[in-house]
Amino acid sequence: MNNDRSDGLTRLFEPRGVAVIASMKEGGEGYFITENLVRCGFRGRVYPISRSQSQVHGLMTYPRIQDVDGVLDLSIVVTPPSVVPSMVEQCAQQGARFCIVVSEGFAESGPEGMLLHNQLLEVVRRTGIRVIGPNTLGVLNSTNGFTSCPHPIYDNMPVAGGIAYCSQTGLLSFGVHPIKDRGYPIGKICDFGNKSDLNETDLLDYLATDPLTEVIAMHLEDIKNGPEFIEAARRAVAVKPVLIFKPGRSEAGARAAASHTGSLAGDDQVNIAALKQAGIVRLHSWLEFWEIPRTLALQPLPQGNRLAIITASGGGGVMLVDAAGDAGLIPSVFTSGTLEALSTISPRLARNPVDVGPIMSIRPDPFSVYEEVVPLVLADPEVDCAVIVVHAWQRVVDTFKKFSSLITRSCKPVAFFGYGIDLPSMEVAQRQFGAMGLPLYFDLELAVRALGASVDCARAKLRVGELAEMTSYRS
Amino acid sequence: MNNDRSDGLTRLFEPRGVAVIASMKEGGEGYFITENLVRCGFRGRVYPISRSQSQVHGLMTYPRIQDVDGVLDLSIVVTPPSVVPSMVEQCAQQGARFCIVVSEGFAESGPEGMLLHNQLLEVVRRTGIRVIGPNTLGVLNSTNGFTSCPHPIYDNMPVAGGIAYCSQTGLLSFGVHPIKDRGYPIGKICDFGNKSDLNETDLLDYLATDPLTEVIAMHLEDIKNGPEFIEAARRAVAVKPVLIFKPGRSEAGARAAASHTGSLAGDDQVNIAALKQAGIVRLHSWLEFWEIPRTLALQPLPQGNRLAIITASGGGGVMLVDAAGDAGLIPSVFTSGTLEALSTISPRLARNPVDVGPIMSIRPDPFSVYEEVVPLVLADPEVDCAVIVVHAWQRVVDTFKKFSSLITRSCKPVAFFGYGIDLPSMEVAQRQFGAMGLPLYFDLELAVRALGASVDCARAKLRVGELAEMTSYRS
Repeated sequence: MNNDRSDGLTRLFEPRGVAVIASMKEGGEGYFITENLVRCGFRGRVYPISRSQSQVHGLMTYPRIQDVDGVLDLSIVVTPPSVVPSMVEQCAQQGARFCIVVSEGFAESGPEGMLLHNQLLEVVRRTGIRVIGPNTLGVLNSTNGFTSCPHPIYDNMPVAGGIAYCSQTGLLSFGVHPIKDRGYPIGKICDFGNKSDLNETDLLDYLATDPLTEVIAMHLEDIKNGPEFIEAARRAVAVKPVLIFKPGRSEAGARAAASHTGSLAGDDQVNIAALKQAGIVRLHSWLEFWEIPRTLALQPLPQGNRLAIITASGGGGVMLVDAAGDAGLIPSVFTSGTLEALSTISPRLARNPVDVGPIMSIRPDPFSVYEEVVPLVLADPEVDCAVIVVHAWQRVVDTFKKFSSLITRSCKPVAFFGYGIDLPSMEVAQRQFGAMGLPLYFDLELAVRALGASVDCARAKLRVGELAEMTSYRS
Repeated sequence: MNNDRSDGLTRLFEPRGVAVIASMKEGGEGYFITENLVRCGFRGRVYPISRSQSQVHGLMTYPRIQDVDGVLDLSIVVTPPSVVPSMVEQCAQQGARFCIVVSEGFAESGPEGMLLHNQLLEVVRRTGIRVIGPNTLGVLNSTNGFTSCPHPIYDNMPVAGGIAYCSQTGLLSFGVHPIKDRGYPIGKICDFGNKSDLNETDLLDYLATDPLTEVIAMHLEDIKNGPEFIEAARRAVAVKPVLIFKPGRSEAGARAAASHTGSLAGDDQVNIAALKQAGIVRLHSWLEFWEIPRTLALQPLPQGNRLAIITASGGGGVMLVDAAGDAGLIPSVFTSGTLEALSTISPRLARNPVDVGPIMSIRPDPFSVYEEVVPLVLADPEVDCAVIVVHAWQRVVDTFKKFSSLITRSCKPVAFFGYGIDLPSMEVAQRQFGAMGLPLYFDLELAVRALGASVDCARAKLRVGELAEMTSYRS
């Protein structure tokens, strides 16, 4: 049943026509929503609803939803909560299949809100319209410029890419993180809000079948229907990585979560072991939620957990070996062929970690050593993935541009740790690496954890797909 | 004995006269060292040694070290390793008390290097000159503009402040991290290099008595003399926090460390428990090494581990409660007085975490709520420290400027987690918060871990000082 429901979610992210029922006054939610749609180049039709203004951001307005004269797939509603149920009903009558209810004041805010919540659900059941929210920023689709975000984000739309983010808090949604400046390749974002109707299971089923989504990252404080979700997870994990960040681990955290979402703690008892069994890989922090998915979106899954370390700093190599152990990776033991080839460049290179620092310091073009060492190491059959330490600046970007296709062709995932002295140039380099499909981190251990998560996802995919274990996984 | 030795280290960081024995050609090490000294406003005398150039960066050069005509406390040597021992000897004869040997090619590089290492140590013993290095970037002192760094860092000198960093890898030293752009308050940095003469114990003793140093953060791959170091640690911890990051935890990591520094694993067996016993607080990652000391430098030590959480995001509150548990902190239970006062602002505020989000959304000046809530919460006797979630942008900086003195006067440490959409403005806000003495993090869990480390440092100080345990520490 979820599969049937989710097949229909395409128009939630790709509506052909969108009504905006919200204040069109300068600085109002409707004003910003239409501004985002116009400036992000959304190609669908936009119907701003306003009695008092004839146009907004160059778009003609419509006095009432009933006046909309074209195809209508979705409405965005930001009105006082008391009128939301009737608004949603009118949208359904006008043919809308989805409503994004941004308004607050429902299940999260006392008995009166709960009454409105029930009225809203009754409309959903009766009309068949599907609702995201209430109490949500809604959705964002970077590939077609669609977003329901009620504040200006047109300057901060992410680079289109394979990550789909879903979350239950504004703090892990759009408008709160420099997703454009970091160069995250994001296709879709969905803020669940109260999950009164559509929830994590619906989204997971949809995103699993969405051809543009390559990795799904979800933040969940509660799970509405554990067994349904686990089933959906199993289906999704068989085709793409699913990562979940679920705070509220501690007893005190669980209490805080209950207080935040208004959900009973009893709703929340999906066993962590069951999630793991279904092949879901867990994220452990706010930072991991934002930073780890991009390695999965940009890089292939590894065939095992043997890590090559190529570093411009011997001290960094030591830290990376520690980090590898923590992340479930083990340093590769290179084949004699690789060791010989490395020796030909310099005898000091013939070990893992490969410390390229000393060679760099004696070369006229120091970074050329990466061009020789990286493809050679990635070709070693004892290597499943690699972490590479680089100076995050333009000259290194230029060096890697020359042979990034060799990295891609190796079909082994790599992650970079980039150091540097000047933050703005480091951030430019990070985006340029991202544009080459190479994830560059400014946190040494995180680069390794991203590869560790890739291994976990690969193992989960094999397990759920009932295939053999990875042959090269070493414990 | 170490104490006697360390008393003399002042001139290593505050030399009155510095000879630079290195290539003065454009792009040479001596060229950059003198450029850094000139541009950083170093007030001591600088004697560039060059036979071929009469001046460099507007400074008169001296053909030989013997021609130096003024006070000489220190020499910076970047020459082929074979001539280093005789150079150091000539410096000693000229009256220099310290030498920073940047050159590589000593104990870290085979039997020939070991011979040079022994020659160098023989000069040290015979003349009494003290050496940092070899194989080092040397030192940096932000308060007087002195640095031996052989590449240009004059545009990236940190804001002067209470952190002293020492490390055994270039990757945790200067020139590899945006210490200025991040606004870290750093007084001194020392790259140990090979630690052939001066080592971690000497530096620890010196920094413990240095009045400008408020927190000492050391990266160590090995410890030369465990019992001596433990004794020095005990003395230091009694007066200021000492944080140590010691990679090579795993067996594989220890092997990599031995390969990097050339030290035998046997040198390295200082028991972690002994470090802890001496009151040293451990840092666990590259990121913690850079990010945690600033909270200790900017904020007072707490009297206990009860944490108040003030957040603009309910979802963030849940994550912070989890993070608190991981960091050894527990959420405060506010007194009835505080709860009443919070209720007066809004009944929804009267709990911990204090979720200010809903109130912000209905206020004309949303951020004014911090001005009311923060001082009130910090005044609660059940609160030892606080983490505060803010939008990292100019308007929030302006709000906190109005009452940052109230935070300071509370004598309770605070750390901030800042979110935002635009990286450059977030980074401006981070520096402005830092200038107010308030540490702002872009990593939610890290802000809490910094407070956890503060609690650990406070407990260690009490324990080593043989005072009573903190009365308000709750397990």
